[in-house]
Amino acid sequence: SISGAGYHSESKAKEYKHVCKRACQRAVDRLNAGALAVDAVAAALVELEDSPFTNAGMGSNLNLSGEIECDASIMDGKTLHYGAVGAISGIKNPVLVANRLLNEAQKGKLSAGRIPPCFLVGEGAHDWAINHGIAPCPSEKMATKFSLSAYKRNKRKMEMAEKVESGFNHQAKKRRQSTENENGSGLLDTVGAIVVDREGNVASAVSSGGLAMKHPGRVGQAAHHGCGCWAENTRTQNPYSTAVSTSGCGEHLIRTMLARECSSAMQSDDAHQALLEAMQNKFISSPFLASEDCVLGGVIVLRCSRCCDAQPSPDIQAILVEFLWSHTTESMCVGYMSAQDGKAKTHISRLPPEAVAGRSLAIEGGVCRLPSNT
Amino acid sequence: SISGAGYHSESKAKEYKHVCKRACQRAVDRLNAGALAVDAVAAALVELEDSPFTNAGMGSNLNLSGEIECDASIMDGKTLHYGAVGAISGIKNPVLVANRLLNEAQKGKLSAGRIPPCFLVGEGAHDWAINHGIAPCPSEKMATKFSLSAYKRNKRKMEMAEKVESGFNHQAKKRRQSTENENGSGLLDTVGAIVVDREGNVASAVSSGGLAMKHPGRVGQAAHHGCGCWAENTRTQNPYSTAVSTSGCGEHLIRTMLARECSSAMQSDDAHQALLEAMQNKFISSPFLASEDCVLGGVIVLRCSRCCDAQPSPDIQAILVEFLWSHTTESMCVGYMSAQDGKAKTHISRLPPEAVAGRSLAIEGGVCRLPSNT
Repeated sequence: SISGAGYHSESKAKEYKHVCKRACQRAVDRLNAGALAVDAVAAALVELEDSPFTNAGMGSNLNLSGEIECDASIMDGKTLHYGAVGAISGIKNPVLVANRLLNEAQKGKLSAGRIPPCFLVGEGAHDWAINHGIAPCPSEKMATKFSLSAYKRNKRKMEMAEKVESGFNHQAKKRRQSTENENGSGLLDTVGAIVVDREGNVASAVSSGGLAMKHPGRVGQAAHHGCGCWAENTRTQNPYSTAVSTSGCGEHLIRTMLARECSSAMQSDDAHQALLEAMQNKFISSPFLASEDCVLGGVIVLRCSRCCDAQPSPDIQAILVEFLWSHTTESMCVGYMSAQDGKAKTHISRLPPEAVAGRSLAIEGGVCRLPSNT
Repeated sequence: SISGAGYHSESKAKEYKHVCKRACQRAVDRLNAGALAVDAVAAALVELEDSPFTNAGMGSNLNLSGEIECDASIMDGKTLHYGAVGAISGIKNPVLVANRLLNEAQKGKLSAGRIPPCFLVGEGAHDWAINHGIAPCPSEKMATKFSLSAYKRNKRKMEMAEKVESGFNHQAKKRRQSTENENGSGLLDTVGAIVVDREGNVASAVSSGGLAMKHPGRVGQAAHHGCGCWAENTRTQNPYSTAVSTSGCGEHLIRTMLARECSSAMQSDDAHQALLEAMQNKFISSPFLASEDCVLGGVIVLRCSRCCDAQPSPDIQAILVEFLWSHTTESMCVGYMSAQDGKAKTHISRLPPEAVAGRSLAIEGGVCRLPSNT
């Protein structure tokens, strides 16, 4: 049972490593207590959301109006069910609402044959959460000193940019490409996690406060099926169970459906090569992003297969787990832990020095063998 | 240049055929005036939304709170850009907001390097539309006598069902599968259109009021990238340009990503066989819907290729257009028209008499050859 969490940014590396470790620990604790992958991945996300340093839940980026609106989704590789919330305010842990939607949908139809929703947004999502016993959280408690000062800074920057732009061009028709490094200031530090349990079930989840200064009501990849997370247990056509969680620029991840693309790529033999090609062909050079010169994102990927060789006994089979990550952002923080490990390992992955963010990629990963109880 | 529009339901066949014809005519008028596919498809959708008989725009289903919240999206096969709105209220033509989002995103970044949104929901979507010059429309003007009386009827039905269910089972833990035919009463009559223009560009759009009595904030396939509509021009790896629009039960269409699945299936040689297999394997028997015994949806599909044979002159190439539709619902209304045609053809497609809705499918279609100016 491994779990990984990925996000970006240089400045808060130490805090990120810590929260990443705690998230892994939380997932492993749940797995050791007998929880399935989907519950463990939700527990990891709660830890990531609760950190004021991540752009998810507590400490999320503020939108144009100075409000926090969060996106989150979760997918269970066993049932292939999925739950998501978009632009939700006043809830401390958006991933728990997504998880509850998933659970409720699995119970079957509502009264009078109505089909239960898998995706709720805005106030409706908030009200549904409250009706299902999830506690509200005043928005002012979710903002941090850091997010508030970033908002003020961004607001000034925007106002200045708009003055400058309208000065250059009174019609304000042509928009200028930004020259600043948008990858530097915590714009993209969304969080995700992927888990495999002892039965070999995979699950994946993702949560995000969205881009800083986004328009109210904007929904990013974290609420978008196939874009923010994906998980599929092995079945007849698929030799591997796969789980993927993405982070980065929502619009790029939506238009390329990166989570699902990476997941299906992982069905080919060489995991490392498959992920490399997926990141290159389905993301950086994707025809869906032909007009973009800077494509920002990162993925964490898990794939599992039963080991058919060297079984110590017929009762105990092993699961072979490959955990990989790749990103086009300057950096990504990753943590991972198996149930046998005493503690989580964390790592700040960086692009090679000569590489250009948004055009080049880093890719790393490892393999481990886990005992299985099925 | 062909355009097709599809939706469901038996009772309003005559009205559906009429509005379908008008929608086709509107798209063809725009194409004849030199518009590209994406503008023509938006024009067709406006006509479909404006009809009080369809579950989109005017006359949309009311949600649990008695309000109208609409979903719509549009995709341009030429640029592969996409725009969507979810759970938007107080806007007569949600597709025009989606189209405007698509157009704005194509202009590049906003001030201070901010990435423009492709997907907005709720109040934020409404405010963005107003700020971009789209007129608000009071919600009471969008409801019809029919939608209001359906709301009252559904409300009573729900209250009775809940009484009965809690009578049978005080814990109300187990939910009963509905025995009623959910396909009968206008629950699923969402609308879509697909267009190819004289340059061979394809585009696709979809609009929906969502399921009757849905939870406020529920977003269905019509706002979901890859689920409600898809359009991709031909390129190196893809011999065909394809456009797809779907209609039916949103949750089923989201979880299967049916629009995108059908689109990619259409790259294989035999269009009819490819669509049949996609509807069977990726929808009715999809592992993503393994727990569902009744899978409701319909698709209209367009695929185009250049004719390399029998060119009258090197300047005038022909485009070979295949237009197909398929559905698992009792019926689907389809209209189509080419720029050479004097008027649109419409057709109410029905399942064969012995077939069971939600488990069987109907599939039909045709081919035509169009002159092209590129």
